[in-house]
Amino acid sequence: MSSARPTEDELIAHYFAPLAGEAGLKLKDDAARFAVPNGSELVVTVDTIIAGVHFFADDPPSSIGMKALGVNLSDLAAKGAEPLGFLLALSLPKDWTPDFLRDFADGLGTMAKMHLCPLIGGDTTRTPGPLTISVTVFGSVPKGKMVPRSTAKDGDIIAVTGTIGDAALGLKIRSYPEFEWVSTLSEKDYAFLLDRYLRPKPRNDFALALRDHARAAMDVSDGLVGDCAKLLRASGVTGEIDIERVPLSSAAKAAIDHQPPLLADAVTGGDDYEILFTASPEAFKVLEDAGRRIKLPVTAIGTVKSGIEPLAVRNRGETFLTHSGSYSHF
Amino acid sequence: MSSARPTEDELIAHYFAPLAGEAGLKLKDDAARFAVPNGSELVVTVDTIIAGVHFFADDPPSSIGMKALGVNLSDLAAKGAEPLGFLLALSLPKDWTPDFLRDFADGLGTMAKMHLCPLIGGDTTRTPGPLTISVTVFGSVPKGKMVPRSTAKDGDIIAVTGTIGDAALGLKIRSYPEFEWVSTLSEKDYAFLLDRYLRPKPRNDFALALRDHARAAMDVSDGLVGDCAKLLRASGVTGEIDIERVPLSSAAKAAIDHQPPLLADAVTGGDDYEILFTASPEAFKVLEDAGRRIKLPVTAIGTVKSGIEPLAVRNRGETFLTHSGSYSHF
Repeated sequence: MSSARPTEDELIAHYFAPLAGEAGLKLKDDAARFAVPNGSELVVTVDTIIAGVHFFADDPPSSIGMKALGVNLSDLAAKGAEPLGFLLALSLPKDWTPDFLRDFADGLGTMAKMHLCPLIGGDTTRTPGPLTISVTVFGSVPKGKMVPRSTAKDGDIIAVTGTIGDAALGLKIRSYPEFEWVSTLSEKDYAFLLDRYLRPKPRNDFALALRDHARAAMDVSDGLVGDCAKLLRASGVTGEIDIERVPLSSAAKAAIDHQPPLLADAVTGGDDYEILFTASPEAFKVLEDAGRRIKLPVTAIGTVKSGIEPLAVRNRGETFLTHSGSYSHF
Repeated sequence: MSSARPTEDELIAHYFAPLAGEAGLKLKDDAARFAVPNGSELVVTVDTIIAGVHFFADDPPSSIGMKALGVNLSDLAAKGAEPLGFLLALSLPKDWTPDFLRDFADGLGTMAKMHLCPLIGGDTTRTPGPLTISVTVFGSVPKGKMVPRSTAKDGDIIAVTGTIGDAALGLKIRSYPEFEWVSTLSEKDYAFLLDRYLRPKPRNDFALALRDHARAAMDVSDGLVGDCAKLLRASGVTGEIDIERVPLSSAAKAAIDHQPPLLADAVTGGDDYEILFTASPEAFKVLEDAGRRIKLPVTAIGTVKSGIEPLAVRNRGETFLTHSGSYSHF
């Protein structure tokens, strides 16, 4: 690179070409091309994350990179799709530095390699506003096999993967480190919760089982309760969930034991990137087993019912929440 | 809609669902799915446009919508690809209004319908920064038939579609309406140049001919001279272009006649969204005929040569420009 500020082309070559994988896809044409497996349908999703809205401008750049791709991979996972590649539309603020870009590309590349999802193209521009990252991810499913959000049925079990609320508590730690309950956390629990906020762990290794056995699914990105209400609404049904069955990490439990109102934050806060699904009771057992094989907890938290009244949210038999309970970035 | 500010879901349903076309694709799932024709490869491209960088915040909202999709359709056209659909990632500033969104969606929808390119999904979020629009467009080509940027050959003719420089002069009118030469334009020429800046006319109806007969191509978005230099560099060749052969509209000619230095702006300014291509002399004739059939001028402006020295840019035999001549948004 010359001593002048690098050009867009130089930036792309230097930091992003290594993410393009061994396929040797060129990032220097107007468009990228790739083959879609025979008999497959394409599944595509785009999500934008913005500094000050979806992450903090001073979050570790590598975790910003992981989040930008991770939130999109999570959508693919919930649809039962296998990743094919992604496009990166990066709008850089005036104060970007080469160090930032290097670490950002590093986090992005780590997430890309972990999920066999190479960079296939993109666009880089400057913005007078905050760092803005739009990632489009492409995946494939056998024709007609995408798991919809809108097909839950009366009698289905409502279930989630992993643990819920860690990221919401991690965000609280990040935003209000001075809160008393934060000081009661062990070093390990503190680090765990913060990490779950900073670095989504999309459940793509559960996608194939989900595709074969789940009835309806979506990823949990805006809070479990609100997202569950959305899924049921989209399916034209209702249901009930029992908050005491919602799977919590030991770190989240420690925080909630110390300060019980944090339970509401855990089940309504965003950024879980777990999968919420419904399945027949028989299929649920198969999915539970599939989770066990990859050490991913799969937990039943409620039941789908016919009707159009709002989702019932109970804790030990009592109504837990009456509002919609969805966290909104918007 | 309720009297409170509409939610993201309500916005999408109200303004964007009509753009999803008759396929009835749902915009309410985490991801969209679509089939890719058998024997085809997918061609994908993403471009971000930002208020204050790529357009003026007070440009007509419908023209912003047309530009957001048009600049991407232009990339597909240059690759010989047929549009399949697009994703919209919209980051709205605090001061958005329902009127803005309605007109924006209207322009976007007009461009989408004109090119049979339905909206298949997207993401809407708020930004503390300026209006930021990332569009990802999907297209298809028969396997192996995408027209690359990197395959120009010694002896090829260098050619462009349409007329060059109108948008660059339109941008000057938009930015400096008080300039003397602007006042000398006829009302019709003034409106024409401004329109060419505001509303790209991507050359997708030329894509099939290009795919069958061009050797290398790219769209002209950052200025003819600089883009031509990029294409030749990517192909590992050099060449020469004659500025006096560059096709100009009568409006651009009128402006340049009055103020000759505007010629340099016309051939180095951005936003033409014409197609620059190279073809063998025989294939060029076929492409010229194909253009004639759709009333699209196709004009030879130079020749590809072997070598790696910089592109020679001459006007009536004299060196016209020595610098790289590419407009950069970055």
